[in-house]
This record gives sequence, structure tokens and C-alpha cells, in this order.
Amino acid sequence: MKNFVFAIVGALGNVGEEVLKILEESDLPIKNIILMDVGHNIGKKIFWREKEYTVFESKPDGFLGADIAIMSAGSEASKELSPKAVNFGCVVIDNSTAFRMSSEHPLVIPEVNAYELENHCGIIANPNCSTIQMLVVLNPIHRKYKIERVVVSTYQAVSGSGIAGKNELKKQIDAFSTGKKIISSVYPHQIALNVIPHIDFFLENGYSKEEMKMILETAKILDPNIKITATTVRVPVITSHSESLNIQTKESFEINDIKTLLANSPGIKLEDNPEKNIYPLPLNSSGKDEVFVGRIRQDFSANNAMNMWCVSDNLRKGAALNAVQIAKEIIHRKLVRVP
Amino acid sequence: MKNFVFAIVGALGNVGEEVLKILEESDLPIKNIILMDVGHNIGKKIFWREKEYTVFESKPDGFLGADIAIMSAGSEASKELSPKAVNFGCVVIDNSTAFRMSSEHPLVIPEVNAYELENHCGIIANPNCSTIQMLVVLNPIHRKYKIERVVVSTYQAVSGSGIAGKNELKKQIDAFSTGKKIISSVYPHQIALNVIPHIDFFLENGYSKEEMKMILETAKILDPNIKITATTVRVPVITSHSESLNIQTKESFEINDIKTLLANSPGIKLEDNPEKNIYPLPLNSSGKDEVFVGRIRQDFSANNAMNMWCVSDNLRKGAALNAVQIAKEIIHRKLVRVP
Repeated sequence: MKNFVFAIVGALGNVGEEVLKILEESDLPIKNIILMDVGHNIGKKIFWREKEYTVFESKPDGFLGADIAIMSAGSEASKELSPKAVNFGCVVIDNSTAFRMSSEHPLVIPEVNAYELENHCGIIANPNCSTIQMLVVLNPIHRKYKIERVVVSTYQAVSGSGIAGKNELKKQIDAFSTGKKIISSVYPHQIALNVIPHIDFFLENGYSKEEMKMILETAKILDPNIKITATTVRVPVITSHSESLNIQTKESFEINDIKTLLANSPGIKLEDNPEKNIYPLPLNSSGKDEVFVGRIRQDFSANNAMNMWCVSDNLRKGAALNAVQIAKEIIHRKLVRVP
Repeated sequence: MKNFVFAIVGALGNVGEEVLKILEESDLPIKNIILMDVGHNIGKKIFWREKEYTVFESKPDGFLGADIAIMSAGSEASKELSPKAVNFGCVVIDNSTAFRMSSEHPLVIPEVNAYELENHCGIIANPNCSTIQMLVVLNPIHRKYKIERVVVSTYQAVSGSGIAGKNELKKQIDAFSTGKKIISSVYPHQIALNVIPHIDFFLENGYSKEEMKMILETAKILDPNIKITATTVRVPVITSHSESLNIQTKESFEINDIKTLLANSPGIKLEDNPEKNIYPLPLNSSGKDEVFVGRIRQDFSANNAMNMWCVSDNLRKGAALNAVQIAKEIIHRKLVRVP
């Protein structure tokens, strides 16, 4: 099998670091890696598989010789660099919002719609973190019982705002603990000891962009006929997003069959024994690959309805791991080529 | 007007302290207060309206001479003491679960069902904190548009677990900040930097008791025809519960009319200008009386559906304030008498 050169853009960000960790442990056929980032990260050196690599400036000719690029450098950088990477013959897997809703670009969660990779044109979009973990859970339920409506409320970790988000929470906790003044700059309000129903910016319809991502990406990835509404909330947790899901299906189900179905679905781990204090928790899910699901119970307020609680590491399955899984899938399907 | 003697049981607990603060600032006709508590709190002295009071042991003859008792000492104490207080001619307003679901005892939120006080038999139950703030918001919507179904997910503060809950979060934050070992004893898992979908104990149907309280108390207080389901979650916030509410009504509405309706309803303050970062937050709501509501928007996933976000101080409107408002109402309605 051919060995591939991976370019990692935004290599020293929250997601870039996770990508490198996951690649390091993976059995993908990797010949070499190229690291790119911006600002004060340029020139830094890091060890990967016991070899030293220098971080280069993110620019088009950095993709020369790369087969697969994993971009985690934001939407603007992605819009500028991705088409140029493709010109160099490099397939781009992009973690930003830049190409997610474009009809030309597949938006892929391997467990859900890997087949859509077949027609890629060089750039593949990685979905939003809160969408990915939800759809890994909704997909098997939809295939078997046809989902009609979903109401989701999220509890999202600060690492979703990058290293700056993590630092802000930690600094605020230290300030609280030592009785110092608490300063907010990443978030519009203090996040320590608070919850903020505000992720990304607000649109005219009163929804935040994060809420609309969950709604629109579900339509694109899973099924446009699923009705879905979302309330997304930032909580003072470092890593792993939690979601309270209310799901109504067309077909009737037994709640135990839902548990069995999810326990046997790819990418999911059932943690559902509340009487023994076993249910998914962000603290337990961080650094792990699965989407954890529990608190699965009948919702008696509607026909064919259920509640559940799902938690996953937003930097891994919500970003880096899903991107690496896409890379694995295009290698496996022999799709590492641009038109 | 007659002046009344108030007995405060659990006077040094989280809720008892708030009761005393609210009574201190109130214009209720108070002649005297009697303070009761247990264990190491017995014999403690506190100042109230510039006079020193001693805390006595919670026992039946403590109610001698009291007109109104506000009990915040848990269900067991309440079951034992309340009937004896009534025998002494004292009307009991009880913050515990002891009498909430009994058909003989009114369960009252003054803004919603004050009229049910008319038939009280000496003991009046104060609803659960997360129910109170939700129903203050649902009530005006139900009166005008007839609510059919509610899906609620909560973000509940640690002060709901008493002073021990607050201390546990603070200690865990200090331990995190200083790199020490984090110890959990009040909660089954670490609450700092975590969220736990577990409040009160679990029932056979997979729901927590807290979730069932929201469901059953809504039926008793507002309307048994409202279909409702709940997921209740503890978050690392000291005071004030937040709730993500999804509401479907029978009658159609304009979303701006909902905002106007809520802005003009008793006990509610609208905070709804997300583009200017204005929405309810637990940190801003603590120590205040209102139920704050915002993020009000159409839910496009169902007919006549909307989402909103409501926050209130769980120790005040969620407990102490509601109890004092009941006291005010029975004084006003001349109902300070037992059968």
C-alpha cells in the first residue's frame, strides 16, 4: 500500500494537537507529516513519533508533496488555502465551517454517510462538533425507526473555543479561588460558575449560529425530513460536550431495543445504569474516542418518544478523530486523488 | 392589622437564611420570629432587624405562640413536626417534598394558583425549585395559548443540595486550582468542571425523582392535561437554576406577542436581546426575585412551538421567596387559621 504525506494546518491549536496525537497512535500508512501554523507558532519544533518537526508558516506552497491535508485553522484560512492545496494535488479534510453547507462538498461522519466521499472534488468538510456526536447516536435510530423530530439542548465545553477558551476558564477559576478579580475576554460573560446560552453569533431569527449548524448539518448529513430544534449552551467544563436529546420516531419501539441498538452501533458506547451512578459524564469521556450514551428512557409526553443523554470529546470525535477517520476512509476507498 | 409570629425551621440552612433575609426586608406585619434548627446550630445566636435571636432545637413545643411556620428542614422533619405545629394553631408553609403530592394539601405558586390557598387545612406545600421558575413562565402562555407539550432540560446549581453542595463545589475548585486531589462526597462524581445528569435518586422508569417532580407538580399546579418531559442536570454553578424550555401550544401565536405577554406577567423579567449579549444568566440572577426569561424564538420543527431560556435564583423564587409570598398571600386573604 502507498504511504501518504499528511499536512496538518493549525498544528498547534486544540484540534491540531489532537490530530497529531491520533495520527501518532494510528496504523495509517503515513510516510511523512508537514506542520503548518501562524504567528508565534511558526518555527516551533515538536516531536512526533520520536522525530523532530518544525512548524512552517501556513501558505500554499506548504502543501507541495502533501497527499492529505487536515485543516483546523478557521474558516478564513481554509477558504484561502484549501483550493490551493487541491491545486497541488492534495485532498483537504477541513474542520472549519467554510465548505460545510456547500452542495459541492461532502460533509461526512464516517459512521453515518461515508459513501458520500465517493464523489468528493478535493475538499471534504468535517461537521460541527455538537452535530457529529448527536448524529452518531441518531443515525441507527433513524435507520430503524425513522426519526420525525428532535429537540436538543447542549452543555458545551470551553475547549470548543480553542486554547483561549480553556485558558479563560482556568484563569477565572484561579481568580475565584484566590479572591482576585475575574476577567472575561473570550466570552461575553464570566464562564466560571456560570452557564451562557450563547455559542457563536446570533442570527436574525433569534438562533445562534451553533444552533443553526446543528439544524442545517443534520439535514445535509442524515435526512432533510427530520425536524430538529436546538438550544446550545456553554458550560464551565474543559473538554467534552454533553447533549440532552428528545427524539420522536415514526415507528414504535421498545426502550430496551433502543439500548441494544445503540450498544451495537459503531462509535457508540452505552453507559446506562443510573441506579449505580453510571451515565455519560464529560470528565470521563475526555481523551476517549466513543460517543457515550445513557439515561435512555421512554418519554411519556408524546407517542414514540424517548429521552437520552450523550457525551463525547469535542476535540476528538467532535473534530480531530472524525477528520482522521475520514482520512482513513478515503485511503481505504482509494479516493486520495483530486479531479 | 394583626401582627404575626413567624417560626423559621432550618433557620441556618441555605433556604432558612434566605427566608430570614427576605422577611427582614419585607413589609409583612411581623411581631416576632422563632428560630429552630438541629445539631450544632442549636444555641447559635443571630441578628435579625438589629435584635439578637437564639436558635432553638426543632421540636413541637417550639411552635407554641407561632402563627406561621416556614419549614426548610427536609421531608422527615417536616412530616414529624408539621402536624404538631398545626395542633398548636400554626399554619405551616413547607419547603420539603413531604406534602407536595398529597391531594389534601395545596401546592402553591402565588402567581399561578394562589386561589388554592382558600381551602388549606393548615399545611401548604411549596413546590420544587425547578418547577416554580418553569411554571411562572408557562402559566401566562398556557392561559392564553393552551400549552400541549413541554420538553425541559435543566442546568441546576449546587446550592440546591444545601450548604454542603456549595462547599463541595468551592473545595473542588480550590483543589483544582492548587493541583490537589479532588474529593467528592455530596455528589456521586466530581461536579467542578463537570455536568452530572443526576438530581435526587433514580426511579424504576429511568427518571430521576427531580425529573418526576417537574412532571407531577406541573400536573397538580397548572394543568394535568399538559404533556411534559424533563431531563435534570447538575452544573458547577453556585446559585440559580437555568432551564431550556421547548413549548408547543394548541393556539397559534406570534413570537413577539409571547415576549410582550411574558414581559407583562407577574414575577417575570424579560432579558432578551441576544445580539447585545443580553439573555438570562445564573450569575446575574442570584439574589434577585424575578424569573428571568430570554432567547425566546419560534421553533420551526413543529407547529405552534417555541424555545426559551429561563433562569431564577433557586434559593429565592425557587424556595424562600415563594414561601414568603405564600405567607403574604394567606395574611392578605385572612387565611392564617387552622381547622
